Amino acid sequence: MRGTMLYGPRDVRFEERPDPTIIEPTDALLRISAACVCGSDLWPYRGIDAPGQPTPMGHEYCGIVEEVGSAVKHIKPGQFVVGSFFASDNTCPNCQFGYQSSCMHRELVGGAQAPWLRVPLADGTLVATPSVPSDDLIPSLLTASDVLGTGWFAADAANVKPGSTVVVIGDGAVGLLGVLSARQMGAERIIAMSRNAPRQQLARAFGATDVVAERGDEGVARIMDMTNGLGADSVLECVGTQEAMQQAIHCTRKGGYVSYVGVPHGVELGGEGLFFAHVHLHGGPAPVRRYLPELIDPIWHGKINPGRVFDLQLPLAQVAEGYRAMDERRAIKVLLWP
Amino acid sequence: MRGTMLYGPRDVRFEERPDPTIIEPTDALLRISAACVCGSDLWPYRGIDAPGQPTPMGHEYCGIVEEVGSAVKHIKPGQFVVGSFFASDNTCPNCQFGYQSSCMHRELVGGAQAPWLRVPLADGTLVATPSVPSDDLIPSLLTASDVLGTGWFAADAANVKPGSTVVVIGDGAVGLLGVLSARQMGAERIIAMSRNAPRQQLARAFGATDVVAERGDEGVARIMDMTNGLGADSVLECVGTQEAMQQAIHCTRKGGYVSYVGVPHGVELGGEGLFFAHVHLHGGPAPVRRYLPELIDPIWHGKINPGRVFDLQLPLAQVAEGYRAMDERRAIKVLLWP
Repeated sequence: MRGTMLYGPRDVRFEERPDPTIIEPTDALLRISAACVCGSDLWPYRGIDAPGQPTPMGHEYCGIVEEVGSAVKHIKPGQFVVGSFFASDNTCPNCQFGYQSSCMHRELVGGAQAPWLRVPLADGTLVATPSVPSDDLIPSLLTASDVLGTGWFAADAANVKPGSTVVVIGDGAVGLLGVLSARQMGAERIIAMSRNAPRQQLARAFGATDVVAERGDEGVARIMDMTNGLGADSVLECVGTQEAMQQAIHCTRKGGYVSYVGVPHGVELGGEGLFFAHVHLHGGPAPVRRYLPELIDPIWHGKINPGRVFDLQLPLAQVAEGYRAMDERRAIKVLLWP
Repeated sequence: MRGTMLYGPRDVRFEERPDPTIIEPTDALLRISAACVCGSDLWPYRGIDAPGQPTPMGHEYCGIVEEVGSAVKHIKPGQFVVGSFFASDNTCPNCQFGYQSSCMHRELVGGAQAPWLRVPLADGTLVATPSVPSDDLIPSLLTASDVLGTGWFAADAANVKPGSTVVVIGDGAVGLLGVLSARQMGAERIIAMSRNAPRQQLARAFGATDVVAERGDEGVARIMDMTNGLGADSVLECVGTQEAMQQAIHCTRKGGYVSYVGVPHGVELGGEGLFFAHVHLHGGPAPVRRYLPELIDPIWHGKINPGRVFDLQLPLAQVAEGYRAMDERRAIKVLLWP
């Protein structure tokens, strides 16, 4: 098959690769229905945290099960499945506690920007839809594999409840789906921070009641002004930079909640500042597997349409253009059809 | 009157001071029944965060109301009251949210190591006992003013629930009362980290089921060993140093809870480490006022005896010896009788 490899900064190649096969008896082999480019793929694409060698790319996926290993009991060939970027057994104590992305046997899934994919720990990792979906549902189901699950975790970790005032920092796909998640959880006021017109528009479509274009201290001042000087109940930090994290902490009310779901780059939290900020802090790699059943259901029934984050769709063979479009912020998120 | 002043490192003087008076109409004037030396008093005593000028010391107090300002409606002369180190109006949005130590009108109470004390915002700050207590209840009621309330907040912020496995880092009065609090909240297993025999003994008396003497990486390894490699549900960080905070984060289970209640000194949290630790983090200056009613009640009825943390009692005039005894760890906590 031909699959996507990152050779170095801005060097994405779609090239001949070995066909994946079942290696462990707990594996499944998927025929990918759609894949995409993740905001987190841009870090190595830009040369930050770059792997030292050519690396197969892609960790968001959905597709049809082609074959399963001898130990796979529940996942069957022919099913349409969605899985997370961390394979998990879904039975260890960390999984049972709801932290499948810290599964004691977790494995990173890689190489999903390709027509075929091997998924480890298939029974624990994959969730099947009620039947094979029509093509129009596939973009939304694909978001459940990462960006929707991550936005949902951001809202959940920030304790969004009916009536909450919520701030979402970051207007990438995760932030935008954090807005959608907060809306689903009943937030009364959702303030999206964005200075990009198409993203502002999508944020409003997903349920944002307000948009703030200011950043940093000015952004904090605006939020304080909009919340009677108190700060928001819940703040979702969906960027992963020091500026975004500080902004999040400073626009949260005393006793409020900050979540953070993007791998932090250069973030250092001073203990004393955090102490007097008096906030709750929770985050980490989103345990997407925990949420998959509850996310697939409203997508299946057309109640939410998170697939709208894909504002550019390309044939898989044009994956390099997909990376360029996201890197240059010409696209929010790129879907790739094999 | 004569009161306690800190002039510089290890220079505590009990000397003539102006008698406190009602200044604001919301003030109360207390005749102190007992005061004490706080672990946090040792930071400036040791020259860390030292104020630039001679400073009245003491912020834990209980006593009899002598006089109230004209705007005080609920607190009456003759009542026995307990208050927190932060005066709070108990009506602003932060107070109503349960974060009285971030009251929008908070004021630090200072100068309680003296026979008389002015307390601002008396109606919001002070809680009266059902009647004037007998002397034997006074040490326990005094702990409610800070160390018990802070230990209770530590357990609450770390989400201690019936059946929890809890680790308490720090064997000062706050840590020991964190043990007592976790026991009251129904924790099944409480592991106190201490290498000091009298403190280990008191921890066990307060409800610790296990004591671990190791620290740092060795301490973490012991906790992981005792929890099947998972870590504890709840970890109370009652020290405020980088080592203690890192130890706390590393011995918490994925999805577990870390609280921190001592003002951090030199603590810096790396974003990436925190991200993959996957813990909840909450802390700050304990909103002791929130808990006062529920803490006074079991003390009043003899159900808990947190006053046992006072292993040295001195006349107020010997306050300098009290500081020395705590600085040299000869005493866990020193009670001062005026």
